[in-house]
Amino acid sequence: MRFDVLTLFPEMIQQACSHSMIARALENNVIEINTINPRDYTLDKHKKVDDTPYGGGAGMVLMCQPYFDAYDSVEKDDNTEVILLSPQGETFSQNMAAELARKEHIILLCGHYEGFDERIKEYTKAREVSIGDFVLTGGELPALCLIDSISRNIEGFLGKIDSAKKDSFSDGLLEHPQYTKPREYRGMKVPEVLFSGNHALIDEWRRKQQFLITQKKRPDLIAKFKKNCDNNRDLKLLNEVLFSKTK
Amino acid sequence: MRFDVLTLFPEMIQQACSHSMIARALENNVIEINTINPRDYTLDKHKKVDDTPYGGGAGMVLMCQPYFDAYDSVEKDDNTEVILLSPQGETFSQNMAAELARKEHIILLCGHYEGFDERIKEYTKAREVSIGDFVLTGGELPALCLIDSISRNIEGFLGKIDSAKKDSFSDGLLEHPQYTKPREYRGMKVPEVLFSGNHALIDEWRRKQQFLITQKKRPDLIAKFKKNCDNNRDLKLLNEVLFSKTK
Repeated sequence: MRFDVLTLFPEMIQQACSHSMIARALENNVIEINTINPRDYTLDKHKKVDDTPYGGGAGMVLMCQPYFDAYDSVEKDDNTEVILLSPQGETFSQNMAAELARKEHIILLCGHYEGFDERIKEYTKAREVSIGDFVLTGGELPALCLIDSISRNIEGFLGKIDSAKKDSFSDGLLEHPQYTKPREYRGMKVPEVLFSGNHALIDEWRRKQQFLITQKKRPDLIAKFKKNCDNNRDLKLLNEVLFSKTK
Repeated sequence: MRFDVLTLFPEMIQQACSHSMIARALENNVIEINTINPRDYTLDKHKKVDDTPYGGGAGMVLMCQPYFDAYDSVEKDDNTEVILLSPQGETFSQNMAAELARKEHIILLCGHYEGFDERIKEYTKAREVSIGDFVLTGGELPALCLIDSISRNIEGFLGKIDSAKKDSFSDGLLEHPQYTKPREYRGMKVPEVLFSGNHALIDEWRRKQQFLITQKKRPDLIAKFKKNCDNNRDLKLLNEVLFSKTK
């Protein structure tokens, strides 16, 4: 998978990608990340990339010319997906991450300041994607979130692909609690069942915990899960959890 | 506002905060950001901070001791908010950003790998916050999103506080399109109304565009807006937009 990131802050992308799993995936050639700075493409003698908005208002708007030309400089083919990070976009999710992981090439357009001249969106025909209902200074952090989340779904990224499949949301539920050594710390104990050595029992306890936690924190996800679930064991466990809650 | 970030990747936080608006806010002492690495607090001779999960499973779980001690090392008072970044948390939003901007001190706990030993959540009594329904390698990118988004709501961060108030979502709607020079580029023209010099007309056009775009991309937000709106001019414009759409 190749990511091409159009950004006025290429160092921010490069630095953030030099740590932990992403750094390892770059070393192992599982992914490739390039940055393209529209400032390098401006024809303005002062290297300007933004100007005041037509019609008035605070802030600066990113200009067409440097972004059109930076975008044109990137080679594309049928397997290229063009994404523009913006609070106006469709909301990013684990499903979208899995879907995008099947692409071979993703171009990420990062805005800054008051945003893009609308014609940049029209010209690139980009899919607008938002990571959530909040405003950030630029598209760089959202682009990094997409790179990380999509990469986790690419084979070879995680040591065991198993880990990605068991991540939160991959079956629409939140994760069960995790515990590690020691058994007791400052008076706080690990649940006994985890020492039983009975894997069926541990699996059942964990699944019930997933239902309990999701029901408590994200009832919207439980409702969706119930609607789509065709696993009888899951439905039985879920009912047990919901029933014991009403007592 | 002081942010204390507990992270195994302090450089990632420091580097990402050395650009653009956040860098300027640090220089101007509008915000302060410290990093605390739990690895510096481990009593293990191999500096270990994680271990295998009790009950089996892939991945590593962050251990109590280094996190408890790193957390204890941070001074807290009545105006401290403790936030743990996790996909299990309540979903971050523009409203939460505005609410948290009124605090004086925020501690951000970043996980990594398969997540925290559950007792770390219990001990810190942290508010669990998620930036969205997708999984990332660590809590660092979400922590950076919170720092950026919350800081934009602190007075003195933006040149004109006006910009934050007009940001997307601050009144529950998406933003209107923006345009800057030139008037025409590669055959694509800026809407004529923006050159009218008539500010009332421009305001009305922009408001209608907000309604149109939000209705098209996020009908959930329009429904919420309608329910809470008590501005007659807005309701009139909104009806015009919705009515003209049905024709």
